[in-house]
Amino acid sequence: MHVQIGQASKARLQPLPLQSVRLCGGMWRQRQRINRAVTLPHGYRKLHEAGNLNNLRLAAEAGEGEYRTPVFMDSDVYKWLEAASYALADGPDPELEGWVDEVIEVVAAAQMADGYLDSYYQVLYPDKRWTNIDHDHELYCAGHLFEAAVAHHRATGKRSLLDVACRLADHIDGVFGPGKRGEAPGHPEIELALVELYRETGERRYLALAQFFVDQRGQGTMRGHDRMGPAYHQDAVTVRDADEVVGHAVRQLYLCAGAMDVYIETGEPPLGDGQRRLWHSAVTRKQHVIGGYGARHAGEAFGAEYELPNESCYLETCAAIAAMMWNWRLLLASGDARYAEELERSLYNGFLSGVSLDGAHFFYVNPLWSPGGIARPEWYGCACCPPNVMRQIAMISHYALTQDASGVQVQQYLPLKAETAHAQVAVDCDYPRDGRIELTLSGCSGDAWTLALRVPSFCPGATVRVNDEAPLPAAAGAMMELTRVWRDSDKVVLDLPLAPRWIEGNPRVDATRWALALAYGPLVYCLESVDQAPGTDLRDVYVDAEQPVQVERCPDLLGDVVRLRAGGGLNSAHEVEDWLYRTWGGPALSRQPMALVAVPYYAWANRGDGAMRVWLPRR
Amino acid sequence: MHVQIGQASKARLQPLPLQSVRLCGGMWRQRQRINRAVTLPHGYRKLHEAGNLNNLRLAAEAGEGEYRTPVFMDSDVYKWLEAASYALADGPDPELEGWVDEVIEVVAAAQMADGYLDSYYQVLYPDKRWTNIDHDHELYCAGHLFEAAVAHHRATGKRSLLDVACRLADHIDGVFGPGKRGEAPGHPEIELALVELYRETGERRYLALAQFFVDQRGQGTMRGHDRMGPAYHQDAVTVRDADEVVGHAVRQLYLCAGAMDVYIETGEPPLGDGQRRLWHSAVTRKQHVIGGYGARHAGEAFGAEYELPNESCYLETCAAIAAMMWNWRLLLASGDARYAEELERSLYNGFLSGVSLDGAHFFYVNPLWSPGGIARPEWYGCACCPPNVMRQIAMISHYALTQDASGVQVQQYLPLKAETAHAQVAVDCDYPRDGRIELTLSGCSGDAWTLALRVPSFCPGATVRVNDEAPLPAAAGAMMELTRVWRDSDKVVLDLPLAPRWIEGNPRVDATRWALALAYGPLVYCLESVDQAPGTDLRDVYVDAEQPVQVERCPDLLGDVVRLRAGGGLNSAHEVEDWLYRTWGGPALSRQPMALVAVPYYAWANRGDGAMRVWLPRR
Repeated sequence: MHVQIGQASKARLQPLPLQSVRLCGGMWRQRQRINRAVTLPHGYRKLHEAGNLNNLRLAAEAGEGEYRTPVFMDSDVYKWLEAASYALADGPDPELEGWVDEVIEVVAAAQMADGYLDSYYQVLYPDKRWTNIDHDHELYCAGHLFEAAVAHHRATGKRSLLDVACRLADHIDGVFGPGKRGEAPGHPEIELALVELYRETGERRYLALAQFFVDQRGQGTMRGHDRMGPAYHQDAVTVRDADEVVGHAVRQLYLCAGAMDVYIETGEPPLGDGQRRLWHSAVTRKQHVIGGYGARHAGEAFGAEYELPNESCYLETCAAIAAMMWNWRLLLASGDARYAEELERSLYNGFLSGVSLDGAHFFYVNPLWSPGGIARPEWYGCACCPPNVMRQIAMISHYALTQDASGVQVQQYLPLKAETAHAQVAVDCDYPRDGRIELTLSGCSGDAWTLALRVPSFCPGATVRVNDEAPLPAAAGAMMELTRVWRDSDKVVLDLPLAPRWIEGNPRVDATRWALALAYGPLVYCLESVDQAPGTDLRDVYVDAEQPVQVERCPDLLGDVVRLRAGGGLNSAHEVEDWLYRTWGGPALSRQPMALVAVPYYAWANRGDGAMRVWLPRR
Repeated sequence: MHVQIGQASKARLQPLPLQSVRLCGGMWRQRQRINRAVTLPHGYRKLHEAGNLNNLRLAAEAGEGEYRTPVFMDSDVYKWLEAASYALADGPDPELEGWVDEVIEVVAAAQMADGYLDSYYQVLYPDKRWTNIDHDHELYCAGHLFEAAVAHHRATGKRSLLDVACRLADHIDGVFGPGKRGEAPGHPEIELALVELYRETGERRYLALAQFFVDQRGQGTMRGHDRMGPAYHQDAVTVRDADEVVGHAVRQLYLCAGAMDVYIETGEPPLGDGQRRLWHSAVTRKQHVIGGYGARHAGEAFGAEYELPNESCYLETCAAIAAMMWNWRLLLASGDARYAEELERSLYNGFLSGVSLDGAHFFYVNPLWSPGGIARPEWYGCACCPPNVMRQIAMISHYALTQDASGVQVQQYLPLKAETAHAQVAVDCDYPRDGRIELTLSGCSGDAWTLALRVPSFCPGATVRVNDEAPLPAAAGAMMELTRVWRDSDKVVLDLPLAPRWIEGNPRVDATRWALALAYGPLVYCLESVDQAPGTDLRDVYVDAEQPVQVERCPDLLGDVVRLRAGGGLNSAHEVEDWLYRTWGGPALSRQPMALVAVPYYAWANRGDGAMRVWLPRR
């Protein structure tokens, strides 16, 4: 998840090393505190209770009782280790480091002498290794192990998990590759992980194997164990020829992230061109407004173009995370601010809704409309999302800054202190609750370099001011570049006007027709029934977008949010209760005007059961 | 499927005997000709080719090769036999009767000495009878055998199939029932079939067993072999307590039809009350405008309330048929014209789309929007729909008339001659292409009786005229009752004004918001790209409902249809191509006005590949 590419890569921008950025306040620092205090210990307990660790102990012939499925239980362990490693990078933490070392011991003990490691096959089907690559998850689990090992090594300098990962990677490299077995992994993940393992170890075989796995897709190498078919597995066409995101959304997006990692290292044009086509398909045809992906429950899959339903959509939390990983790599490769803005969309909406404010409850599925009855459970039988949330929150600062030879780019606005190649950068802000961003520089080199600030497309009228100079207009949807010989204590203030705005959907989309969604900065808002007048049925609301929207900062609400109050009302419930279709042209429905209260989508379902709605019909 | 209830039943209305109604022209007679000339022979061939008949021969130890699944292959044979029997009721047909007798011989030979008959278990799992009631289809296949046997007996007077059916029914009655096994069948069908078998044989055990199966649901008797869960099987609550149609749509609707058949015979109030609640749920929450049911592909299932998507909906042809069967029984029980109107909605739209104009291609799934790439195949691996279409078309006249002690009710307008309890009724019309319905009476008894004519709710301004008397207004959405001592040659002319109209959807439905569907009489219309100006992308059309709709009778188009021409146009494709969401309040999209040409929905996909759309966004 954390990316650390070499200077020799073909990327336009460089990420910052893991320890170079520290959050120092704001909503994400608060989330990281909860992540450390609540979520990581919760995950540690669940890995014990749900049997993940016992599965690995069984593989080491030290466990008790029955093996517990699903087949990819090991990967939850690895994602938790990765998350905990990022937390350790934040500073000394003996308790957490003890848990990490304990879990790594369990993992290491499970590894076989030849490097193979997958508790499911070791315990249940020792003779069936690598026989069901499309449906089972050996290579997927391996990928998460590699990511965890890289994170652990970067965070602690310890090789305990990295050595396990390299032994498994070497084993896999002995089984798969040119002249060996050629087969596309059913669930992508190992591709991006192998590239990261290459970056951490310098072992080029790992990069070559990542490219090999990417190249296998669309070659008819899958053995057809799985009835879901080739499109579900992104195996109907090659990665370079694909022009539509299809099938299982997380698989598609992990594959895209892996292909981009290969592209970042190789710069091969057809691979990059294919990814840009797929991004266009995703962002202009198959994305929900919260930056979530996967319209269908069936197959956890992308739907048809413009099939973007509100209630029956899937939008798995892992898919939003995967989209952020993909957009991050697209950003590094190109320097194009659009990718940072799409990352931001998922981050503040479809990803963040995946975890409760208390840090101990998780959404797998993130609908845009619920009549009620939906709550985040503590854990899942298929628990891919909770540890994915943990690792994402623990390394969120990674997405804030990039750098290159010419300067530093601020991609996301979080209060932080960063050590860059050109200077120390301190960012002070309360974004996205407020649009004033204050940057202070120190440790400047004395050379001229460019400080580039991303101005989101939804912020027309932004201005930037350096020290006491006159404010400059900063164009929306672009990087505002300030080039000069920066001096210590130079201060830059970016003013992003975060006025509430109404969003409309493409007219080709049924689900958003004649409806509007309310937004404030990067945050998509929703109505929750708990905030409305008693008896309000969210099925019957309408909005009047001509009325001004009132903005109210509420420090005590939902962990400190900006609440919005919009004009609108209710259609008469009894006039719509008893019919579905009727001849058009009759009398208009009776309406009762009332104010509607909206809160950020990510914060929904934190105050008991109730209805929630994002897209609101127009008057 | 054909219902023949006794005078002692609790129904308000009586259906007419099978041979009492003969079509004599019009679109349905044409469909029946194609059914006899093309579809039934096509089905007969497919039963041979697809292995259905060989499966039964294997059960009789006379077949060759492998058994072929799915598990309910026998039911296709029975539905074909039922369809062919209705065709035989139309008049002598030695060729068809020969096929029927041949197929019945195959069925009879397969039956075991103890009466058991299900080729799947007999051939593959002879020791596993009745072990997987929820997932497998022994009782479902039995039900279709009973329906076929009853139809064959009514049509031909032969007992060859009826005897097989009774032996199997007796066998099942020996296995299931109070004090024996109590389990709800996973796929309802046997309930309504047992009631019909009771009606045909007078054997009250069959009625009791039907009621027993209805009563089992919601009692936790299903053994949980099937992972789909209790709601999928309508087993979460009892039939009497249910207030929402849920789960697999065909299962739900067959169950409803069976429960209504039991209610018709018993008149038990809680059963009837439950059915009325379920009908309200179906018709005001979960029905697509074409009278199709089942919003979701996953589980072939009903969606949530108001979840009625256009492209991703399922609307299995069998579900529309099942809805017609249910509405027919609701009509018989109550005499309420609403049920006949809902039957009509499914009949002319979501059912009829299930078969091509050439009679040899079938839709299983019936979407309301397709960007193209959809065609009716010749048959299906899961071929429940094609023979279901055959039997429905072959007995369509059954739905035209009802009678009771007070008179005759005309429920559907088809050109026909009928022998009723009060007179011979001849109907001459070209409905739904034209709204003039002419009825001529003969063989009148000399007593006073009521001729009741159903006036659809979509026909305000209808009038009725008896002989040369002054026209009377006939209220829409009700039965127009004319009571008098009718004389031979009395003529009644009903004038239904079939003006084109725009239909709107309930504002709680996302998929139809700010969109209209065009209709003419009972027919829902659609746009097909083949009829529009070259290059028209149906994703970008809008309609202007303020403009008049032109009506054009086209005898040579799609088997003779009324074509409609509406005002509307196209949004600029290039202005909507590259985004999904944007801030509301920008410049309006460019539009190009153009006329839009609509044809009946049922006739779509008969002229090669292309896009189709029912719900059209408003200007």
